[in-house]
Amino acid sequence: MYSHFLDLDTHHGRHIFVWPVPYQGTVSFMGGTKSGPEAILKASYQIETFDPQLGVDLADMAHFATLPPVHCPASGPHELHAAMRTVLANHDPGKDFFVTLGGEHSIALPLFEFYQKAHPDLVILQIDAHSDLRTTYEHTPLSHACIMARARDLGLPAIQVGIRSLCREEYEYITAQPDHELMTVFAWDLDTPEKTARAVNTFLAGRPVYLSFDIDGLDPSLVPGTGTPEPGGIDYAWMREFFAHLWPGSPLVGMDMCEVAPIPGSVVSESVAVKAIVRILTCFLNSQSETT
Amino acid sequence: MYSHFLDLDTHHGRHIFVWPVPYQGTVSFMGGTKSGPEAILKASYQIETFDPQLGVDLADMAHFATLPPVHCPASGPHELHAAMRTVLANHDPGKDFFVTLGGEHSIALPLFEFYQKAHPDLVILQIDAHSDLRTTYEHTPLSHACIMARARDLGLPAIQVGIRSLCREEYEYITAQPDHELMTVFAWDLDTPEKTARAVNTFLAGRPVYLSFDIDGLDPSLVPGTGTPEPGGIDYAWMREFFAHLWPGSPLVGMDMCEVAPIPGSVVSESVAVKAIVRILTCFLNSQSETT
Amino acid sequence: MYSHFLDLDTHHGRHIFVWPVPYQGTVSFMGGTKSGPEAILKASYQIETFDPQLGVDLADMAHFATLPPVHCPASGPHELHAAMRTVLANHDPGKDFFVTLGGEHSIALPLFEFYQKAHPDLVILQIDAHSDLRTTYEHTPLSHACIMARARDLGLPAIQVGIRSLCREEYEYITAQPDHELMTVFAWDLDTPEKTARAVNTFLAGRPVYLSFDIDGLDPSLVPGTGTPEPGGIDYAWMREFFAHLWPGSPLVGMDMCEVAPIPGSVVSESVAVKAIVRILTCFLNSQSETT
Amino acid sequence: MYSHFLDLDTHHGRHIFVWPVPYQGTVSFMGGTKSGPEAILKASYQIETFDPQLGVDLADMAHFATLPPVHCPASGPHELHAAMRTVLANHDPGKDFFVTLGGEHSIALPLFEFYQKAHPDLVILQIDAHSDLRTTYEHTPLSHACIMARARDLGLPAIQVGIRSLCREEYEYITAQPDHELMTVFAWDLDTPEKTARAVNTFLAGRPVYLSFDIDGLDPSLVPGTGTPEPGGIDYAWMREFFAHLWPGSPLVGMDMCEVAPIPGSVVSESVAVKAIVRILTCFLNSQSETT
Amino acid sequence: MYSHFLDLDTHHGRHIFVWPVPYQGTVSFMGGTKSGPEAILKASYQIETFDPQLGVDLADMAHFATLPPVHCPASGPHELHAAMRTVLANHDPGKDFFVTLGGEHSIALPLFEFYQKAHPDLVILQIDAHSDLRTTYEHTPLSHACIMARARDLGLPAIQVGIRSLCREEYEYITAQPDHELMTVFAWDLDTPEKTARAVNTFLAGRPVYLSFDIDGLDPSLVPGTGTPEPGGIDYAWMREFFAHLWPGSPLVGMDMCEVAPIPGSVVSESVAVKAIVRILTCFLNSQSETT
Amino acid sequence: MYSHFLDLDTHHGRHIFVWPVPYQGTVSFMGGTKSGPEAILKASYQIETFDPQLGVDLADMAHFATLPPVHCPASGPHELHAAMRTVLANHDPGKDFFVTLGGEHSIALPLFEFYQKAHPDLVILQIDAHSDLRTTYEHTPLSHACIMARARDLGLPAIQVGIRSLCREEYEYITAQPDHELMTVFAWDLDTPEKTARAVNTFLAGRPVYLSFDIDGLDPSLVPGTGTPEPGGIDYAWMREFFAHLWPGSPLVGMDMCEVAPIPGSVVSESVAVKAIVRILTCFLNSQSETT
Ligand SMILES: [Mn+2]
Ligand SMILES: [Mn+2]
Ligand SMILES: [Mn+2]
Ligand SMILES: [Mn+2]
Ligand SMILES: [Mn+2]
Ligand SMILES: [Mn+2]
Ligand SMILES: [Mn+2]
Ligand SMILES: [Mn+2]
Ligand SMILES: [Mn+2]
Ligand SMILES: [Mn+2]
Ligand SMILES: [Mn+2]
Ligand SMILES: [Mn+2]
Repeated sequence: MYSHFLDLDTHHGRHIFVWPVPYQGTVSFMGGTKSGPEAILKASYQIETFDPQLGVDLADMAHFATLPPVHCPASGPHELHAAMRTVLANHDPGKDFFVTLGGEHSIALPLFEFYQKAHPDLVILQIDAHSDLRTTYEHTPLSHACIMARARDLGLPAIQVGIRSLCREEYEYITAQPDHELMTVFAWDLDTPEKTARAVNTFLAGRPVYLSFDIDGLDPSLVPGTGTPEPGGIDYAWMREFFAHLWPGSPLVGMDMCEVAPIPGSVVSESVAVKAIVRILTCFLNSQSETT
Repeated sequence: MYSHFLDLDTHHGRHIFVWPVPYQGTVSFMGGTKSGPEAILKASYQIETFDPQLGVDLADMAHFATLPPVHCPASGPHELHAAMRTVLANHDPGKDFFVTLGGEHSIALPLFEFYQKAHPDLVILQIDAHSDLRTTYEHTPLSHACIMARARDLGLPAIQVGIRSLCREEYEYITAQPDHELMTVFAWDLDTPEKTARAVNTFLAGRPVYLSFDIDGLDPSLVPGTGTPEPGGIDYAWMREFFAHLWPGSPLVGMDMCEVAPIPGSVVSESVAVKAIVRILTCFLNSQSETT
Repeated sequence: MYSHFLDLDTHHGRHIFVWPVPYQGTVSFMGGTKSGPEAILKASYQIETFDPQLGVDLADMAHFATLPPVHCPASGPHELHAAMRTVLANHDPGKDFFVTLGGEHSIALPLFEFYQKAHPDLVILQIDAHSDLRTTYEHTPLSHACIMARARDLGLPAIQVGIRSLCREEYEYITAQPDHELMTVFAWDLDTPEKTARAVNTFLAGRPVYLSFDIDGLDPSLVPGTGTPEPGGIDYAWMREFFAHLWPGSPLVGMDMCEVAPIPGSVVSESVAVKAIVRILTCFLNSQSETT
Repeated sequence: MYSHFLDLDTHHGRHIFVWPVPYQGTVSFMGGTKSGPEAILKASYQIETFDPQLGVDLADMAHFATLPPVHCPASGPHELHAAMRTVLANHDPGKDFFVTLGGEHSIALPLFEFYQKAHPDLVILQIDAHSDLRTTYEHTPLSHACIMARARDLGLPAIQVGIRSLCREEYEYITAQPDHELMTVFAWDLDTPEKTARAVNTFLAGRPVYLSFDIDGLDPSLVPGTGTPEPGGIDYAWMREFFAHLWPGSPLVGMDMCEVAPIPGSVVSESVAVKAIVRILTCFLNSQSETT
Repeated sequence: MYSHFLDLDTHHGRHIFVWPVPYQGTVSFMGGTKSGPEAILKASYQIETFDPQLGVDLADMAHFATLPPVHCPASGPHELHAAMRTVLANHDPGKDFFVTLGGEHSIALPLFEFYQKAHPDLVILQIDAHSDLRTTYEHTPLSHACIMARARDLGLPAIQVGIRSLCREEYEYITAQPDHELMTVFAWDLDTPEKTARAVNTFLAGRPVYLSFDIDGLDPSLVPGTGTPEPGGIDYAWMREFFAHLWPGSPLVGMDMCEVAPIPGSVVSESVAVKAIVRILTCFLNSQSETT
Repeated sequence: MYSHFLDLDTHHGRHIFVWPVPYQGTVSFMGGTKSGPEAILKASYQIETFDPQLGVDLADMAHFATLPPVHCPASGPHELHAAMRTVLANHDPGKDFFVTLGGEHSIALPLFEFYQKAHPDLVILQIDAHSDLRTTYEHTPLSHACIMARARDLGLPAIQVGIRSLCREEYEYITAQPDHELMTVFAWDLDTPEKTARAVNTFLAGRPVYLSFDIDGLDPSLVPGTGTPEPGGIDYAWMREFFAHLWPGSPLVGMDMCEVAPIPGSVVSESVAVKAIVRILTCFLNSQSETT
């Protein structure tokens, strides 16, 4: 009953695919990410598309086609990625804008590959509490805890924002990497939204950017519904302003919203996820129409 | 078992009616407002009436008579308002101070009318995430999403604080209204509590004020139990200081606390609602005793 | 994401409309019926359509078109019924088979009227814990507690099965009515499924029948997720056999499944509702194909 | 807001005290009994007082005075019992009928003593899954697991029905006691309601009886909300008929309903508790009016 | 904190390994099986080991060594089975009795293989709502829905009790198999416990038996906490008596308890799982000591 | 299954005892503290021991022995304290470092006494929302609401941080006490972490310090799972920095973490509790190794 993101009936502006990938193969602690896409779609029916701060309406700048959810195989992440690649094979990475709804963060890998095909100079902007740079985790290199290690394997530069939990090996890897290849902005080092946006833009340097948004990058006081909540995270108002200052700059080619694990009886976590997606798309598309 | 607000056994100071209106006719998304009044009363048993910041005790300044809850008819908001007006007909709007416990925000309309009778220059101070200025919503002009449009129909000036969600029509209405009739303070434009209190007092200009407090004005990290949570809201400490600075100034004639929808297993939302009521009454009554 | 009842991709057999009516205007005690249709659709994805007892598959006998949910107005039951009548106006009561998913039991009235148009000799078969024969309840004659009184107003004969809760006025009304107009089978008087099916068939007398299934007719040990649970109800196995023996006999023209109010964290109640619908349709359609 | 049992406004028939004792000092496993009395009172607002099987209305035979809940001390069961005895000291055990709402089963001891004062030949009828005959449990002789051992210390004969969980020491105690002093009817030995009622009446022998009803005597499929659920328990319909056949016989002098521990999001357990109380009082009072 | 099954401190009788396998790789609908083993261990602390019906105490007949839980890899069921086989390689299938706590039903395969090594004439006794005979499900032959097809691949004869949900392909497979290879006892064909035990014993014919107990074989009114609840299941009292009559007969070499998916706020499901394990072991070991 | 704090397998550095005391005798409002220790242990399995801000790993500085939980007697706090003293009698207060996991705040008293024996100049550092200075509460001087009054009875100086709820009597007591005996830092008076750490260190004056951490000192937006949530509390980032600045200074001899009452379906509260413990130990032990 909640199959259309934002429940819009418009045909203006940018065409955007919303793609549910309810994958929970490599469950941590609290689980529930398989219910994430559905909860996000449902919550999207309650969210206004008008942005009173910017005075613009996302419904005037974009329309959405919500794809059928990927049927996630039980045989493990290899097969999940294969199923995703089959769908993506019918799309054009140079034109098609996906908002992929996780599911675990491990769902991002086929999208990294997809956009890299059309954009060899692609950069990943990761919002996360965790650096996700482990070589392998729970016996698989395709765990959510390894997703950025896999991005690095593809040769993708990455900037990660809001990080506050990692192991010593990840820490040493970060330290060893050159800053223009991998830049980690710890949560305690976050500056004002405006200055951080400027620093990120310096790293991005106008190259096409894919945004991989692990909801646990935000503070768990606002998003309790996630697998491994980490206090001391990004505040909603900070994020709202950060994206207002990020553009114009690097063009956004696609994004995901991962690790939403709804808590029965509460709708806060998924509502915040929708608000974040709407704000990001509004800021980006608004900056494009302004520059045009 | 929890029939008396704050469980006090005192008879000092101002007489205050606490009035449960467990109305949930026009449910949004998450629902549960019909359990709001009961949860607030129950939570009130755990709240200290002593205010260590101000060094005064609400139990010395007021005593409370908790009325029986309105039996909310199933036939719709028209009948609910009729039932409320029947109760209010036995009260004196010039003397009787009501703390009405919602239920949905739509319960405020009979109270606007009630206090307007005795105070033709009444002003509404609204704390809310939503501007509630739609002409009609879900086929009725009496929805919670229209309550401030109905206040405007009555000719009441209003100042709304914490707003961060509305549609284009509401935005245009706000823009078109003269500032002395309707003033909207967006969440991202909030100044320090002290300066905001001063600005609000300028608007109120000493006229009698009715406070309509939609709990979703506060940030959902603290109040997850509400129908349509909107991140980026008012912080508890900000609110605590705001009311400390609001008085002396416009006399408070009545107030409501709406849209509390308790989450099973958690008591945070209703506890915050009680703390807010206690703080507001303490600040107001304390300012009165000081000025006497 | 769960928009199609049973998630079938077949086009055999009887065409059946599945119609979500998530109405919760006249909430009792526990509420939650507005989430009923969605929960039922979601649970339907897990239910096998093959019936190993009868050796037939519902997917061979019927295909389903799931309609968009009725947008339930907040202004009360009158407007809800108007909205439902608008949808029904585009359908043929002589041909179209609806499985309506409540929502409260009050949603059944427009369907009673709809089928009565094509079938002047229509009979209502009600499964329920409550007789629902009050003249008015909570200030409206359109409450769920009055739905069978409204059926009687339309002149419809009715047989009610599983009843175990009513007030003295309803009891006296039942006693006063002639047995061929209204027959109440109390829960403690239930015979074997076979004998009860025979008694019901005697009452129905081959006339077209509309089945109004209030889920609280079943025992709350199996269906805790309903507004006013009443112990001592119908056992699932009893119901399974009852419908196996009801046909051939009176042709079923439509049915509803009401008062499912999902409990967060549990899926039992809605799963049982789906199993009941599937069993009823399988028994009826199988009896038709056998008799053909 | 739910302070009156059954929400009646009548003054006919027997005067009955309803006494909430929300004691949870000696919590087992799941806890929550401190919320039992409130949940029972709240659920009572939804229960019909008319009994369609017997054709009588409890509201014609009794009226209820709901006492303020005992303020349960944190210092342990000794102090709780002292607080209860203080209240009972103002009552007449020869005349006053209490329906005490637990809280844990340990709350029954002061009531055993109270009624024994006026009725030296008092007998206890216990409905329970556990024999509660331990000498001491968790370092206190006043645990819920010892309540019947304390009854035996007072010299009270007891018959226990529905028992299915005990330790070897309790088993040997039961075996060693003479049958006219202590009779244990195991759940697997339950006969039809009628025959069991007859056997119980033989034990009671017309002596005054106090009913101590531990809700876990019923099957946990219907009452999941209790501290130590034990499958294989008493069915609701069995219980309904058992009490219909128990009277006339031994006069009931008081009763308790213990160990209700409400589950958030579900109301089944407390609804069943209310139905049981209502059925028991209806059967007893109806038998009295018939014999008069 | 709940690491020892039943919290016993005894060393009598049969040595039994309790092995937690919290695997949830191939999640259905409701999920939660990864929390099953922990919930079962925790619930076991509340269960009496004395059996008042048989007059014996499990603590006199067995002692338990609870193994560390298998660390379930995220890479899929192949790796899970490999991890389990590594543990089992250190054990003797001819001597070691495992009570394996799932986790999904797919965890049973390595145990089938393990016991088959020592017992070439091993038979599987399956309690389940589902026949689990699909060739493949959700892209893997190792799904919980295929576990009995894998048992058949190993050449193991099997008798399944309580079945009530399957697809046409499974139905046709069952029909095609010779009765001495695969026997399916549907839920609606269950006879008395005694007669069913006799029929099962005829099938088992004294051969060593492994019991694979999918908790959804029991009725969901008592076990709501499972992934795919199916009404019309086995009653607890029936099961209690069935195992009392099953022995002496085929020796039990090991067992599992699968698909327990605890519901937050309720402990009924896991308590019933523990009671079932305790009853089964008590009946089997008691029959052995009697026959010795 | 979660019996070892942090699930470490190391033997470096300081030996630390982790001691679960699941005591909930004097339950307030929401209860659930008896599940606190288990939830903390379980959550600890998900927390990284590496601290990327300090660049050190707790696993290099400490190893943990998790003691069996205290079996909490039902007879009241006196007996609980006796049971705790029995365990502590086997330990050396001059050497043994306990991290005690509550349970209610009342569990701290035996630890105050224990450490005072070896450190006559012991000071208590309390993080709390409540001053806990009542003489008696709910009929016992051993309530959680009295724990600091008991500390004062022992002659222990105390500094309390984050306080925002107390009654007039506590307020007057605080005012009457000399500042070097009792210092209360209200939540609204908190300075920067660095300055507050300096002020606290002035009070501590190098004397040995026991940290009694009532989790409700933190803001309930992050820790909703506690008995009496009080908004306006300490922010996680503030706390993280505060402890970074507290040492070197007074040596920490032991600590507790109390009043964690897990909310079913959410893991945020206990995760924050673990993060706090890990941060505190890391900051303290790191300061020691640096100064060595
Ligand atoms: Mn993350
Ligand atoms: Mn991530
Ligand atoms: Mn609002
Ligand atoms: Mn509002
Ligand atoms: Mn009903
Ligand atoms: Mn009905
Ligand atoms: Mn019991
Ligand atoms: Mn008992
Ligand atoms: Mn199964
Ligand atoms: Mn199975
Ligand atoms: Mn506190
Ligand atoms: Mn405290």
